[in-house]
Amino acid sequence: MSKGLPKRSEDYSLWYNELVKRAGLAENSGVRGCMVIKPYGYAIWEKMQRVLDDMFKKTGHSNAYFPLFIPKSMFEAEEKNAEGFAKECAVVTHYRLQNDPDNKGKLRVDPEARLEEELVVRPTSEAIIWSTYKNWIQSYRDLPLLINQWANVVRWEMRTRLFLRTAEFLWQEGHTAHATAEEAVAETVQMLNVYADFAENYLALPVVKGVKTPNERFAGALDTYCIEGLMQDGKALQAGTSHFLGQNFAQAFDVKFTNKEGKLEHVWGTSWGVSTRLMGALVMAHSDDEGLVLPPKLAPIQVVFVPIFRKDEELAQISEKVAELKQKLEAKGISVKYDDRDTERPGFKFAEWELKGVPVRVAIGPRDLENGTAEVARRDTKEKQSLQLEGLENTLENLLHDIQENIYNKALQFRQENTVKVDSYEEFKRVLDEKPGFVLAHWDGTPETEERIKEETKATIRCIALDTPEEAGVDMVTGKPSSRRVYFARAY
Amino acid sequence: MSKGLPKRSEDYSLWYNELVKRAGLAENSGVRGCMVIKPYGYAIWEKMQRVLDDMFKKTGHSNAYFPLFIPKSMFEAEEKNAEGFAKECAVVTHYRLQNDPDNKGKLRVDPEARLEEELVVRPTSEAIIWSTYKNWIQSYRDLPLLINQWANVVRWEMRTRLFLRTAEFLWQEGHTAHATAEEAVAETVQMLNVYADFAENYLALPVVKGVKTPNERFAGALDTYCIEGLMQDGKALQAGTSHFLGQNFAQAFDVKFTNKEGKLEHVWGTSWGVSTRLMGALVMAHSDDEGLVLPPKLAPIQVVFVPIFRKDEELAQISEKVAELKQKLEAKGISVKYDDRDTERPGFKFAEWELKGVPVRVAIGPRDLENGTAEVARRDTKEKQSLQLEGLENTLENLLHDIQENIYNKALQFRQENTVKVDSYEEFKRVLDEKPGFVLAHWDGTPETEERIKEETKATIRCIALDTPEEAGVDMVTGKPSSRRVYFARAY
Repeated sequence: MSKGLPKRSEDYSLWYNELVKRAGLAENSGVRGCMVIKPYGYAIWEKMQRVLDDMFKKTGHSNAYFPLFIPKSMFEAEEKNAEGFAKECAVVTHYRLQNDPDNKGKLRVDPEARLEEELVVRPTSEAIIWSTYKNWIQSYRDLPLLINQWANVVRWEMRTRLFLRTAEFLWQEGHTAHATAEEAVAETVQMLNVYADFAENYLALPVVKGVKTPNERFAGALDTYCIEGLMQDGKALQAGTSHFLGQNFAQAFDVKFTNKEGKLEHVWGTSWGVSTRLMGALVMAHSDDEGLVLPPKLAPIQVVFVPIFRKDEELAQISEKVAELKQKLEAKGISVKYDDRDTERPGFKFAEWELKGVPVRVAIGPRDLENGTAEVARRDTKEKQSLQLEGLENTLENLLHDIQENIYNKALQFRQENTVKVDSYEEFKRVLDEKPGFVLAHWDGTPETEERIKEETKATIRCIALDTPEEAGVDMVTGKPSSRRVYFARAY
Repeated sequence: MSKGLPKRSEDYSLWYNELVKRAGLAENSGVRGCMVIKPYGYAIWEKMQRVLDDMFKKTGHSNAYFPLFIPKSMFEAEEKNAEGFAKECAVVTHYRLQNDPDNKGKLRVDPEARLEEELVVRPTSEAIIWSTYKNWIQSYRDLPLLINQWANVVRWEMRTRLFLRTAEFLWQEGHTAHATAEEAVAETVQMLNVYADFAENYLALPVVKGVKTPNERFAGALDTYCIEGLMQDGKALQAGTSHFLGQNFAQAFDVKFTNKEGKLEHVWGTSWGVSTRLMGALVMAHSDDEGLVLPPKLAPIQVVFVPIFRKDEELAQISEKVAELKQKLEAKGISVKYDDRDTERPGFKFAEWELKGVPVRVAIGPRDLENGTAEVARRDTKEKQSLQLEGLENTLENLLHDIQENIYNKALQFRQENTVKVDSYEEFKRVLDEKPGFVLAHWDGTPETEERIKEETKATIRCIALDTPEEAGVDMVTGKPSSRRVYFARAY
């Protein structure tokens, strides 16, 4: 089944692409830059959505839905945001097709159905949402306004990769409005922490929490906070961002409120989002040359049973036992698949579920039944052991916890081994080429130096970590003073 | 709060629009024909989604996601479908905006960023999905393929109404592929039954299950099944459709499979969908002049507690009791809101929760606490009663069941009272004007007669009900023979 999956060590990029396709997560579509998210991939995304949505609701947010289209004049209202996204947006200009008089059976755009004003397909929804908030907010009593949207967005990327960079992608975007700058910043940081919590406890991906440099800020934000993870090839991946928008959008869309003193003020805003890009992070962080390695908390199937049998009556006995075990496991909220296909051999099934990253595989044959045992294989370490059927639901529940923890710890160890402090530019370049990962280096704080390093090494400043201690030093390139190290890496 | 809500008897259409806006369900946006679904409205939609999604999964379907855009050449492949939607589709022609040299600070479409091939924003996804299925289906072992998608779609409607008809709307669309016509028809009917089950048991809306006439079929289908509900103004509303596509899309996109005998055949298809239109049905079917009347199973808040107090210490005592009751109710899966705002009076709160259709309101004052009782008001009948606090969680659980049932029965009774058999065209017209509803009449089976009736009376054939008995008769207009009655109505 996994036969021919390229090896990570030989071609990481090809390995990733092939794995995403063969494991049934996603594939390219007949539409340039757009992907099809296949059922197995979508099932993982649904699990992510459910967990995140619960987290958003627990922190007081409600979901709503705003239009897909943004009229051009509305789009351009916040200038920096418009400038940032104008270069990559899909534009609707017509609202009708007609029969093409020159080509029987073909259609063409009806030249008479040109829109008076072009519509931008949302690359992000600040403009349409803030133009709506203007009517929702009058008084301090209307604040904070805490809203989230699950939606599709479109950014016309020229070079796309499944999940990591696609013209259309699915995401959630939170958009909140507050009475004070302090409250807005607190919200920005709260949502960054929600994302970090999700990344570490569900994706099993340790992340660095930090702030972007001005160069890397969201267009229209005063500050962009982010979480950054490290993939197995030593490249960083930005897994979520949370923006403090200041009063930029409130000013652009004239959103004011009467404060408790009766004075009219512009409100303060935030926005924050994670996308189907997380699917890419999930694959890249943990999977191996045999296929996906899914953290149990996000695996659509957590335990797969494979019967080992020759005769139909053996299968019947095994099936009966599995039905019983399945019920007990499901009562604990564990999702179970019984693969009793008679068209495939056990070895094929093993490989298939390995490819699909099912955390635990249980094989049961006639001798196991006699002994009251089963052969249990964990996907992450590939260890096998014989376990008692009696109380198996408890053993497996614990095993799933262990696997979740182990996957996280492995990723954490990898990150620790691939995060180095560097003090000279020469060493910096050598590390990036020989043992890429996070490089902690001093930076003089100027966009020019950042730009130069990016051009010369393809490494960018991923973030200024929130927990970095102050440390006197000098910029490795310019020799100018620096008060703390920042995270550099090549990145997705 | 509900002050000034128009009355149904005076202007049903205005009542609907105002209610949708004031109850916080949705509003018009700054984008022509597109609405904003507000948090309270979206919370109801989320409940609908959850229930439907579970039903789809129980019947073996998986979710997936396909691109928003459909290249023109792909869109036109199934001719009837293309013809049906070409007149109302949004078309993306460019992928970039640039600074407008003639207007500082403004943007314009970059003439050099014209797409080689225009992209249609999906009005429905058969084309993109069947072009994908071509690669997913080779053998009978790949069938049936049972997939659903939750998505936004765009149909450029000229006259729009919140939820009922909007340029962009949210929906789910199932797309399945089968080895035989029989299996595809069985799937079509199964999903019709799922929709009817949902409408009756969750929306509390009795529906007629039937088949559309050829005139009203989905473009590209061989048969369209539908469920039709009756609104309080006597107009019908199509609440869901399920299409038997035959081999139309399989032929258009060359989707073939090798059957068990090794022969290559085109597969058979279905598609089926319900949309945010259901929100309109929910409002129109049950609500009254004071506001929404929500069936408990879809109400985001099922029970609201309102404290009646003068002094802070009274509030404290009430709050303590409510916290205890809330916990017991939530343990039963009942969603509870405690409205302890000190900025509004009880009367204002009562009116607000009435407007929002919360099924049960519980008012508790100091004297109630002394007596161990509370004043419980049900939204549907407006009856109030004093109930014991002891065991209130059980009483309210039963009450919510009663309310769900009562709302359904009321709608059923309304439909029964407004469904009449008519044998002459004169009576037909009189009924439509004087006491509109479903009119069961004989029809000669021709599109011409159907068209004439539509032009002369604005009534359409809603469906040929699946359970209509055979009955010899004559068409009320042409006098030609007919073997059974069909459902006519004016419709949304």
